[in-house]
Amino acid sequence: MSLTTLFNPRSVAVIGACNEPQKVGYALMKNILAGSPREVYPITLGEVEVLGHAAYPTVSMVAGSINCAIIAVRADLVPKILTECADKGVESAVIISAGFKEMSEEGAAHEREVARIAHERKITLVGPNCLGVMNTHAGWNATFAVGAPRTGHLAFVSQSGALGTAILDQANAEGVGFSKFISLGNEAALTELECLAYLADDSDTAAVLLYLEQVADGPRFLEAATALTRTKPLVVLRAGRSSRGAAAVASHTGSLAPSDAVFTAALRQAGAVIVDSTRAFFSVAKLLTLGITTPRTRLAVLTNGGGPSVNTADLIDLSGTLTLAPFTDATKAALRTGLPSMAAVGNPIDVIGDAGPDRYAHALDTLAGLDTVDAVLGLVTPQMMTDPEGIANTFATYRGRKPIIPVFMGGGAVTGGIRTLHEHGMVNFNAPSDAVEALAALAASVPISLRTTPLEPTSATTAPHASLSMLPFTEMQELLAAYHIPLAGVLAEERDDLPRATRELGDGPYALKVVSPELVHKSDVGALRLNLAAHELSEAWDTLLAHVHEHAPEATCTGMLLQRMTGGVECIVGMKRDRIFGPVVVFGLGGIFVETLKDVSMRIAPVSEAEALAQILEIKGLPLLMGARGREPVALEILAATIAALSRLALEHPEIEEADLNPVLASPSGATIVDARLMVR
Amino acid sequence: MSLTTLFNPRSVAVIGACNEPQKVGYALMKNILAGSPREVYPITLGEVEVLGHAAYPTVSMVAGSINCAIIAVRADLVPKILTECADKGVESAVIISAGFKEMSEEGAAHEREVARIAHERKITLVGPNCLGVMNTHAGWNATFAVGAPRTGHLAFVSQSGALGTAILDQANAEGVGFSKFISLGNEAALTELECLAYLADDSDTAAVLLYLEQVADGPRFLEAATALTRTKPLVVLRAGRSSRGAAAVASHTGSLAPSDAVFTAALRQAGAVIVDSTRAFFSVAKLLTLGITTPRTRLAVLTNGGGPSVNTADLIDLSGTLTLAPFTDATKAALRTGLPSMAAVGNPIDVIGDAGPDRYAHALDTLAGLDTVDAVLGLVTPQMMTDPEGIANTFATYRGRKPIIPVFMGGGAVTGGIRTLHEHGMVNFNAPSDAVEALAALAASVPISLRTTPLEPTSATTAPHASLSMLPFTEMQELLAAYHIPLAGVLAEERDDLPRATRELGDGPYALKVVSPELVHKSDVGALRLNLAAHELSEAWDTLLAHVHEHAPEATCTGMLLQRMTGGVECIVGMKRDRIFGPVVVFGLGGIFVETLKDVSMRIAPVSEAEALAQILEIKGLPLLMGARGREPVALEILAATIAALSRLALEHPEIEEADLNPVLASPSGATIVDARLMVR
Repeated sequence: MSLTTLFNPRSVAVIGACNEPQKVGYALMKNILAGSPREVYPITLGEVEVLGHAAYPTVSMVAGSINCAIIAVRADLVPKILTECADKGVESAVIISAGFKEMSEEGAAHEREVARIAHERKITLVGPNCLGVMNTHAGWNATFAVGAPRTGHLAFVSQSGALGTAILDQANAEGVGFSKFISLGNEAALTELECLAYLADDSDTAAVLLYLEQVADGPRFLEAATALTRTKPLVVLRAGRSSRGAAAVASHTGSLAPSDAVFTAALRQAGAVIVDSTRAFFSVAKLLTLGITTPRTRLAVLTNGGGPSVNTADLIDLSGTLTLAPFTDATKAALRTGLPSMAAVGNPIDVIGDAGPDRYAHALDTLAGLDTVDAVLGLVTPQMMTDPEGIANTFATYRGRKPIIPVFMGGGAVTGGIRTLHEHGMVNFNAPSDAVEALAALAASVPISLRTTPLEPTSATTAPHASLSMLPFTEMQELLAAYHIPLAGVLAEERDDLPRATRELGDGPYALKVVSPELVHKSDVGALRLNLAAHELSEAWDTLLAHVHEHAPEATCTGMLLQRMTGGVECIVGMKRDRIFGPVVVFGLGGIFVETLKDVSMRIAPVSEAEALAQILEIKGLPLLMGARGREPVALEILAATIAALSRLALEHPEIEEADLNPVLASPSGATIVDARLMVR
Repeated sequence: MSLTTLFNPRSVAVIGACNEPQKVGYALMKNILAGSPREVYPITLGEVEVLGHAAYPTVSMVAGSINCAIIAVRADLVPKILTECADKGVESAVIISAGFKEMSEEGAAHEREVARIAHERKITLVGPNCLGVMNTHAGWNATFAVGAPRTGHLAFVSQSGALGTAILDQANAEGVGFSKFISLGNEAALTELECLAYLADDSDTAAVLLYLEQVADGPRFLEAATALTRTKPLVVLRAGRSSRGAAAVASHTGSLAPSDAVFTAALRQAGAVIVDSTRAFFSVAKLLTLGITTPRTRLAVLTNGGGPSVNTADLIDLSGTLTLAPFTDATKAALRTGLPSMAAVGNPIDVIGDAGPDRYAHALDTLAGLDTVDAVLGLVTPQMMTDPEGIANTFATYRGRKPIIPVFMGGGAVTGGIRTLHEHGMVNFNAPSDAVEALAALAASVPISLRTTPLEPTSATTAPHASLSMLPFTEMQELLAAYHIPLAGVLAEERDDLPRATRELGDGPYALKVVSPELVHKSDVGALRLNLAAHELSEAWDTLLAHVHEHAPEATCTGMLLQRMTGGVECIVGMKRDRIFGPVVVFGLGGIFVETLKDVSMRIAPVSEAEALAQILEIKGLPLLMGARGREPVALEILAATIAALSRLALEHPEIEEADLNPVLASPSGATIVDARLMVR
C-alpha cells in the first residue's frame, strides 16, 4: 500500500464539492485550493463550478488522470463512487463521509463493500468517517479542519477526528508545527500500521504522535512501532485504559480497546513515549518541537523568582527519573561574576526579580559549557522590570548551544515573550509541571537496545471462552525441560520408585505431591505433604492417596513428585495469551505481593534475557530480591533466563494458552521451580 | 493584630514614591491611585509632587492622620522610617523593600530591628521583601504588580512574590478573580497564621489559596488551618517537598521547609486541598471560581467528539475517587429524544461533531434533573459546525441548575467561546486532565468531621541532635498502662519468679526476653527465645543470660519479660516528635512493608480514634488487615484506640521523644503489643 499519492497527489478529485460555506464539501475545496498548485477537480451534480474550478458530474468525465479522490457524499453512494474512481485509475482515496460502521448495520455493510473494492482494486483508502489528511511540506490539506497548520517535523496520526481538530488548533496557537496529519476514522482499509511504516522512512518527519484507541493487530503493531522507534520517537496517547474509557471507545468505534496492563507493556517494549492525557500529549509535542527527542534527565533551572523554581525543583526531584544537576564551585563562581549578590547560584539559579535579558544570558553562557547539564528550564515570571521579549530573544540565541525549555508563567504580561519564541520556532510551557511531565515521559521510554530478540509475529487470536485443560504432568515436564525450565524434583510413578527418587535427589527433607490431571490446585485439596524425612515417605504416599481419594474422588493419581525442600524468595513467572498481543509473560513476587498488591510486570513475547531483567527490575517489591533485611541478593539472571525461556515456549507452542510457574523460589544460587501448570485448549 | 487598615486604609503614605515609571515607588503610587478614592500621601525627598499628589519629606509632615504606610526605600533606612510611622500613629505597614534577611547578616539585623519596632508599637507589619497587598472589594492595590486583578471571592496568600505576579497575571487572562491578595515576604511579623485567622471571618472570601514554603509554628498552623476549613476551602501548594526543593526554599528564604510526609499529614488533617504544581493550584482556583467548593465526585461528561471524552473517561475512572455516574434507561431515553441517532447517550454523552448549542442544551436539560450527577464536564472541540460562543452561552444558562465545568479544547477557534464564558463569570479548562486533576484534589480533602479531638497546641521545638536514652522497662510499662496501652506479658525479676509469671499468663508456649536498659534492639543480640514450653523456661533463662553476657557484656539484666506466643498481622505503631509540628504518630504493617515498601501513614497528635481509623485505612497493604487470603479481618478499632492513646501520651509527656510499639500483632479479637520502646531526652 503506497501512501505517496495520499500525501502529495498531482491531481485530485473532490467528490461532493460544493459552494455552500457551511458544508464539508466546501471546506475541503477551500483547504485544498489554499495549498500548493495541483490539478483539482470538483465532482458534483449540482454546480457548474466550485470556487472557480470547473465541476464534473462524475470522475469518469474528467479528461486528465486523477491520483487521489477525496469523498464526502452520502454513505450509500460511496461504494459505487469508489468503483468509478478505481476505473479512472485513482491510487488513493479518503472517505470523509460518516454513516458507516459507527452508525448502523446497513452502514457496516457499505463499509465492508468499500473495503473490498479498495483491496481488490489496490486503492490506498483512508476512513471512512474521518477528518482527512495533510502534508504541510507539500502544501496539501485535504481535511475540513479550520485553519492550516504550521509547517513542522511532527507527524500526527489520530484515531479521533475531534481530538485532531482540537490539537491542530491548539498547535497553531502555541507554535507547534506538523509535517503530516492523518485522521484514520473507521480504518476500513488503512490502519495505524501502514502509517507507522510510512512515517518511519519519511524524511520530513522527526517524530510521530499517535492517538490510539485500538490496534488492528497486536504483534504487527509491536513490530511497526519498534521499527519506528529505532530512528525517531513515537509518542502514544492511550485511550480506553479504564473500563469506562474502554466502554466509551466501544460505543464510538465499535472496537475493543486492548487491556491496559498488556497495552502498556507492549508500548513500553516498543520504546514508545507513553502519555495519559491530552495535556501531556501536547507537552511532549512541544518538547519535540524544541528539538528534544531523546531523554534529557540532568536539568538546570534558571529563574527570576523563588517560588516557581522551588515548585520546579520539587517536581524534578520527585519525578524519580529527572535530577537537578549539581554545580561545582567553579560553576558557581562563574555564575556569580555576572549576577548581583542576592542571586542564588546553586541549581536552581535565581537571577532575581529585577533581572533583564543580560542576567539570563550570563547564566546561559555558563550553562552552555557544562557537560553535566542536558537541558535548561528557563522560568520567567512577569515582574516589574521583566522584559519578556528580550529574554525570549536570549533563549533563542543560546538554544543552539544547550537545549532550553522556556516556561513563561502568567497571562497578558508574557504574551509578547511567547510571541517572540514562536517567531524563533520555539514554544512555551505555561507551567513548570507541563515541562517536567513531558521530560519524565520521555525519560521513561525504554531504550530499544533492550529488545535483542528479533520479533516473529504470531497469530494473537484465541477463542476467548475456550475451555482449557491441564497438560499431563510428564508432557509438561518434558516440554519445560526442552526450554531449559527445569521443574524441581523426580517423578515416582509408584511407591516403590521412592528409594530411587531419593537417591537421585540427595538428602532431604522432602516434599511429596500428588500428580493428577484432575487436580489443578494441589494445595486446595491437601494433595501434598511437606518437610518429610526419607523414612516417612512411604507412609506419606499412602496417607496422601487416601486423602485425595476421600476429598477428590474423581482425581486419578498418575504418580507423585518428590522434591527436596528448599528456601528462597517466592516468585511467580506466568504467561497468558492476550487476544490482541499474543503471549504476555508476567513476573511478580509470590503470595500477597501478587494477590493483594498486584505488584507484577509484563512483557509481550518474545522477551530477551536482557529485557526480562528490565522486567524484573520494574516490580515495586524489588528490594526483596536485591537483599532486603540483610540477605544476599538472588540470582536475577537465572530468573531472567526463565522468563525469556517461557516466552519462547509460548511463541513456539500456540496451543499453550496459559502457563504458571508458581512458586519459583529465587535464591542467590538459582531459581527452583517448585510447581508448574500449562493449560492447553 | 488587626488586618483591617491593612486591607482597607482610609489614608495611606507611600514612602519612597517617585515619578520614574521604571521604579517600584511609581508602580505602587499608580496602582494605589487607580483604586477607590482615599487620602494618598507620597513621601519622598526628591519630588514636590508625585502623580499629581503633593509630596512630603517625612510622614510627620503630613497634616492628617495616616492608617497605613507602604515602604519602598533602602533597607537600612527602614527602621528609622518605621519608628516615624509609629510616632505618627500608623496602624499597618507593608515593607516592599528587599535587602534584609535574604541578603546579608546586616540585613538580618535591620529585619530584627523592624520586627521589634512593629511588636512594641503594635503595628501590623507585612514583609519585608514582598510584592504587597490587595483588596479588590475595596479598590485597594498596594502592590507593584502589573495590572489590577479581577474582583472575585478567592483570597490568595503567597510566600513567594514571583509566584504571586505569575498567578495574578494568569488569573486576569483566564477569568479568575480575587477578593484579597497578600505577599508575605520575609514574615518579620505577620505570617500565614494571622492571614488564615482573618480570612476565615472575611465575608468577601469564599476560599483561600495558600502558597506555602514554611510554617512559622506547626501546631498553631494546624489550628488556624483547621478553623478555616470548617467554613471554607483552603487550597495549599506545598513547596520544598523534595530535598532539592527544600534546599531551594532555604536558599531564598533562609528558612527550613517542613518534612514532606509530616507536612502532608498535617495538611490532610487540617482538611486542606493539597496540590503539587502551579498548574493544579490554578486549576483548583478555577473550580472554586465556578462555585465548586466541595467534593463533586459523580460526574457526567458531555462532548461533541469521541477521542477527548474517552481520555476524560479514562482519567476519571483511574482517579480512584471520581466516577462517571451511570445513567438509567429512562435518562438515556430522555437524552435520545433530542439527539441524532448516531449520538451516544451513555456517559460520556456524545452529541457528535456537528452539534450546535441546542444539542448541548437538550443534554444539560436532562442532566440538570439528575440527583445522581454532581457536576458536568462540558467538552467542546472546534469542529466545522461548532459555535463556541453559543455553547458557552448555553453553559451559562444551565450553570444555575447543575455545576458545569467547561473544557473548550483548541486554540484560536475556541477563544470566542472562552471570552463568552469570562463574560458570564465562568472559566475554561483547556484540557480535561486539568479539570479532573482539580476535582480529584478537592475530593481527596478529608472531611473535617473526622477531627473530633479538640486541638491543644504544644511546643513543637526539640533539640535536633539531643542524645536519647531508653526509658527503663518498668517505668515504660507503667506509663503505657496508664494510657491503656498494655505491653504483653509479665516481668520476672529473677528466675524464681517464672512459675508465678506462667500462672498469671496461662498456657504456653512462651517467649522469654531479656530486659536491659542497654539493649535497644533485643533481637540483634539474640536476647530473646521463642516457642518455649513451661518446663524449658528455667534453662532458657540461664542460657539467655550467658548469651547476653558473652555478646553484650556491657548490658545489665533487670529481669526478663515472659509472654505467651500469639499470632496476628504484624503492625507498627510509632511516634516521632517533629521539629515543626510536634508529635507525629505513624502506623504501618511490620517487616518488609515498613522497611522495604515504606507503606506508612501519619497524623499529627492529638488523633481521635475515628481519625486513627482513617489513618489505618490509608495504608496500601490494608487488604492484609481486612482479611486477604481468606482470613478474618482484624479488630481495626482496637488498633485505632492504640494509635489514639499513643498520641495522647505523646502530647502529655513532652519528654518522650520517640515511641515504638513494634511489633503489634493485630488479630480479629485484639492487638497484642509484643515489644515497645520509649526514648527520652
